Amino acid sequence: MSPSARTLRLRGGIDLGGTKIEAIVVDSRHKVLGSARVPTPTSGGPPDVATAMSGVMTEAAVAAGVEVSALVGVGVGSPGEIDAKAGTVTGAGNLPGWTGKFELGEKLEELLGVPVALGNDVEVATNAELKLGAGKPYQSLIGVFWGTGIGGGVILDHKPWLGRGDAGEIGHTVVRQGGRRCTCGRRGCVEAYAGRAAMEIHARKLHEAGRHTALFEIMHERGRDRLTSGIWQRALEANDQLAHKLIDTAVKVLGAGIASAVNLLDVEAVIIGGGLGVRFGEPYVERISAAMRPHLFVDDRPPRVHLAGLGDLGGALGAALIAPTRRPAAKVAVATATTE
Amino acid sequence: MSPSARTLRLRGGIDLGGTKIEAIVVDSRHKVLGSARVPTPTSGGPPDVATAMSGVMTEAAVAAGVEVSALVGVGVGSPGEIDAKAGTVTGAGNLPGWTGKFELGEKLEELLGVPVALGNDVEVATNAELKLGAGKPYQSLIGVFWGTGIGGGVILDHKPWLGRGDAGEIGHTVVRQGGRRCTCGRRGCVEAYAGRAAMEIHARKLHEAGRHTALFEIMHERGRDRLTSGIWQRALEANDQLAHKLIDTAVKVLGAGIASAVNLLDVEAVIIGGGLGVRFGEPYVERISAAMRPHLFVDDRPPRVHLAGLGDLGGALGAALIAPTRRPAAKVAVATATTE
Repeated sequence: MSPSARTLRLRGGIDLGGTKIEAIVVDSRHKVLGSARVPTPTSGGPPDVATAMSGVMTEAAVAAGVEVSALVGVGVGSPGEIDAKAGTVTGAGNLPGWTGKFELGEKLEELLGVPVALGNDVEVATNAELKLGAGKPYQSLIGVFWGTGIGGGVILDHKPWLGRGDAGEIGHTVVRQGGRRCTCGRRGCVEAYAGRAAMEIHARKLHEAGRHTALFEIMHERGRDRLTSGIWQRALEANDQLAHKLIDTAVKVLGAGIASAVNLLDVEAVIIGGGLGVRFGEPYVERISAAMRPHLFVDDRPPRVHLAGLGDLGGALGAALIAPTRRPAAKVAVATATTE
Repeated sequence: MSPSARTLRLRGGIDLGGTKIEAIVVDSRHKVLGSARVPTPTSGGPPDVATAMSGVMTEAAVAAGVEVSALVGVGVGSPGEIDAKAGTVTGAGNLPGWTGKFELGEKLEELLGVPVALGNDVEVATNAELKLGAGKPYQSLIGVFWGTGIGGGVILDHKPWLGRGDAGEIGHTVVRQGGRRCTCGRRGCVEAYAGRAAMEIHARKLHEAGRHTALFEIMHERGRDRLTSGIWQRALEANDQLAHKLIDTAVKVLGAGIASAVNLLDVEAVIIGGGLGVRFGEPYVERISAAMRPHLFVDDRPPRVHLAGLGDLGGALGAALIAPTRRPAAKVAVATATTE
């Protein structure tokens, strides 16, 4: 045990993604003291994912020079349907064998020996941008996470707006009614054109139909089995025409979908994050901003559009923000020592 | 002067629309004691519209058995850009000669002799549904006003969400990128397919190109110069194929646009009002609800979809809700009479 870590109120944050699991240790000022990442298991089931999460959290603690059991708490940003109170994650489609409900909170507390809190991955990342990143100057914003799918987080009056629990699905704004089939099974969603998974399916179809592209060669060269953000970037740099065409469409569609959300909510700012968003950076933030313009109903004062200020780390930093900061045992000790 | 009207705290409400101006007098329990309506002037300018508003408000007072000067205040729901504090309306496109700014509040106070407050027409109508109509059971809802255009109002946490002042433009959700030209000048908006003005332009174009429709015959028979909601209804009843085709598209597009908004905000309810919405009634609310379904990301608990509970009167009732309830002169008198 490391009492100094407890004194410093160090917290852990785990960003559970479909491709990688990232863990960090932060101090009370959100400074990252250690981090680690591993690829997300592609087989097995929820308990295997939990074991991998525990392993990478422990590694991050080692990197920070503390024992994981000394953290005051660990927060997790997870895909799927989160019941924060019950500590369960249900139906996380991008994770292996995770169709049903799993008590991830309890399992991680058992493995790590510290209190664990769960949150939705996109919500915690949006909140991190609001509190620590590009969203700091604003009271209202929409976070758009351009990656495997298109995640969205809505901040109104400086607070997350969750609706009945599932708000933020900007990726499933219909931009082309009756259009391309989305990975969600519906038609014409933003994600059907701009999500990395959907773009890969479309690229593969066109490639198999004889369309030239270097995307899959680059993928094989780099020993990957999916078109990562880095592969898309390389293909663009190599002036691959199909990659350009698909990414151009993605930008247009993102512009229309985000503009529609701005027309409805009139927020102050839009923040672009996610694997592709962070990888492509400022030039693409500019392009998305330009693609929004023709669709903005109030076009003389467009919202500010920013790149995610926390980059790739937003998910883990947002997870650390929701980490329990008081250990139940310590709470009892404090209560005993006072007049309560 | 009628002191009893003052004692009863009677308020006036004026709904200023592109087609008609409707005025009501309500008591403190929002009961309508008198009402009147006139067609909106089609020529002249803002002062003429103000004179017409004053006239119809006076008529409504007569119908209620009081003098208009005895009302504690009058609220106005207006199109265009409202500055409630300054009492001005700017750029109300559907009103004659109203491109610039006009001091409507001051002008009406001068004509009516009572304090006047201005609000956005869609916002006050949405608020009326929340406080007095179909929205009463809900904390969050979207009001969709299907008429000349497609207006939208957003209620979150039981309060209007206005963003930077212009939230709610659900009519300018992009449903068909690169699609039909909208009356706002942009492309592919919901309003381009579902707004009555846009549908009329489209119907006229198809009719001039030789497509059969009874729409314009009905219009001429009824001595009108535009396709009112009643004319659309008659054409549908007469099984006019073009009318059916255009309205079917409108329903589909409304379904997609509203579903996108629900995916983003996950509100509890959607309320359908407006000239066409109220005229077509429950069967079309059902149809819009069904058209939303294929696009709802969380499809196992769709929001409730209701017809506007206040019907055509929502705008005027909402306007009366924002009427000043204390006369500046009375305020001074009260202050003098107390220890303040």
